[in-house]
Amino acid sequence: MQQLRIPGPTPCPPDILKAISRQMINHRGKEFAEIIHDVTAKLKEVFQTKNDVFVLTSSGTGGMEAAVVNTLSPGDKVLATCCGFFGDRFAEIARVYGAAVKCLDFEWGKPVDPDAVRKALKDDPGVKAVLVTHNETSTGVTNDLKSISTIAKEFDKLILVDAISGLGSIDLPVDSWQCDVVVTASQKGWMVPPGLAMVSVSEKAWQAHAKASMPRYYWDFTSAKNYLEKGQTPTTPAVSVFFGLAVALDMMLAEGLPNLFARHARIAALARDGVKSLGLSIFPEERYASDTVTAIRAADKLDVFKLLKLLREKHGVVLAGGQGSLAGKIFRIGHLGWITESDIKQVLHAIGEVIPQASS
Amino acid sequence: MQQLRIPGPTPCPPDILKAISRQMINHRGKEFAEIIHDVTAKLKEVFQTKNDVFVLTSSGTGGMEAAVVNTLSPGDKVLATCCGFFGDRFAEIARVYGAAVKCLDFEWGKPVDPDAVRKALKDDPGVKAVLVTHNETSTGVTNDLKSISTIAKEFDKLILVDAISGLGSIDLPVDSWQCDVVVTASQKGWMVPPGLAMVSVSEKAWQAHAKASMPRYYWDFTSAKNYLEKGQTPTTPAVSVFFGLAVALDMMLAEGLPNLFARHARIAALARDGVKSLGLSIFPEERYASDTVTAIRAADKLDVFKLLKLLREKHGVVLAGGQGSLAGKIFRIGHLGWITESDIKQVLHAIGEVIPQASS
Repeated sequence: MQQLRIPGPTPCPPDILKAISRQMINHRGKEFAEIIHDVTAKLKEVFQTKNDVFVLTSSGTGGMEAAVVNTLSPGDKVLATCCGFFGDRFAEIARVYGAAVKCLDFEWGKPVDPDAVRKALKDDPGVKAVLVTHNETSTGVTNDLKSISTIAKEFDKLILVDAISGLGSIDLPVDSWQCDVVVTASQKGWMVPPGLAMVSVSEKAWQAHAKASMPRYYWDFTSAKNYLEKGQTPTTPAVSVFFGLAVALDMMLAEGLPNLFARHARIAALARDGVKSLGLSIFPEERYASDTVTAIRAADKLDVFKLLKLLREKHGVVLAGGQGSLAGKIFRIGHLGWITESDIKQVLHAIGEVIPQASS
Repeated sequence: MQQLRIPGPTPCPPDILKAISRQMINHRGKEFAEIIHDVTAKLKEVFQTKNDVFVLTSSGTGGMEAAVVNTLSPGDKVLATCCGFFGDRFAEIARVYGAAVKCLDFEWGKPVDPDAVRKALKDDPGVKAVLVTHNETSTGVTNDLKSISTIAKEFDKLILVDAISGLGSIDLPVDSWQCDVVVTASQKGWMVPPGLAMVSVSEKAWQAHAKASMPRYYWDFTSAKNYLEKGQTPTTPAVSVFFGLAVALDMMLAEGLPNLFARHARIAALARDGVKSLGLSIFPEERYASDTVTAIRAADKLDVFKLLKLLREKHGVVLAGGQGSLAGKIFRIGHLGWITESDIKQVLHAIGEVIPQASS
């Protein structure tokens, strides 16, 4: 069997694959209403929130777009904290919709510096919202969201969080960290095929929403809320992915959030230690290294493309390369969702086997 | 087994359910590239087009939003032809994004009148685009798209088509009818679960796109085109629905488009005849009655809600009610995708059984 160890889509457990192969039902009927109410209640447990949570039929990026267009107006000043490919994407979405985006850039591999956020907010009192990437998938960095959010709240700013590859795998208590809009997606730690984005919306986000004038139809939160009250979505949802998500949430809650987070931390530590023992080095500063994806710096003589090809073809292990300016310079192991110690050991073993052949 | 006969989601054949339960693969790998290239080529056959075709991860409404924001600018004059719930939706999307929308309204149950379109275009030379619903699911009307498109082209207008519940079931030769953007969705005649919208884009639509300034990120066609060249999508696609679509397209092309359209026409005629022989009447003018969904007028003494409930609970037959102002006044049978004469006979039999109990 293939070891698909990219940072999403992640492998799906058999019970989830079985669930998604169920025959269609009426998405405006009673049975779907029961499923969406159940899924929403359980999502709130994993988000650790009492806020509204909506499930959108889209990739995670659609959820990011929804976060922006539902809370902002053209011309609004936005502080985007960028430390990788996905931080840049969040900034770009806001820019496309006419926000006045100021990027606070950090070298790729480094985390967002909370002190720099404080300084930027002090320097420009006009900023309305702060955009943050919880877990920067492109560099394998988990930002100190708690500190960043605390600072944003000192200045009474809206905080919009791309937690696509973090939430559900790494502790992110949405309410206690006062995050206003938090986005994740089904194909990450949730162990479900792609097709759904899940988004939480705080009271402060609703207040911003009431005044936000960016155009929106498909992504509109008011519409999502009105339909959810009837146990529906505004337009036809990805029903089969919902079937899978319902099963996944039961599995996650049965494991328990503390165990879930501890398992991800344990496996990530195993991945980092294993990589180092192979003579490779972790790309980001290690104390910010992510528990869902490990980015590995390619030593000078290592051909990343060759390494990935050999792993795939000789060992059935599928890893990810670098994105954007990191292509060819790093490779990444996704270790989120349905994964055990034994899976990661297999991956590490395979890497060890192919390094000599992929080195010049 | 349930007879799910709403106008989407439609029942999925066993081979498609099996396909969608496949384990995940890398959406940026070689295997997915082969799938998306194969799916795109086959979609072009069913669209009967040489235009670009993109697959978006969203419901059909997302595809409608994509059609609008990729080709128009705020302030552009748009002629929306509206004869039901979904025509109104298309107009509303354009309005939300700042188009100057003129609605050409027709009584629900009647089709769009091509002569009225000609007059409207003659009266206002400033109109840039015409919005049309190919098959109005809410009223069971198929519009005379060929005539409407011919007129739009006489005036050199862009024509954007919501063909969500028609394409793949009713003949719509995109190129010979010169339709610029045509939208459909996986859960209709395609026999696949919801989660994907499929959209064709003509040369004239690309020219409009180059100047269109409505904001877009998730829906951007340029981005879709650039990624498709690499065998990818800009963001993570609904991989399992793609697996299903690949199988569905093989089934559809094996049946052959003429046979596919003839089967839908034959079953629709059977549905209409059966309904009339039960003493009920077809809601729309019959010569415009759709081959994918039959809307039935509730006789005075018939309680539609009770009828639908009895059908569901006593016979396992799931039909749709009326939408918007038609709630309680009509009910609808979806007969698109994976359906045979015997299925529709079962549905008609069940309706006959419950009418006495649902009548006062």
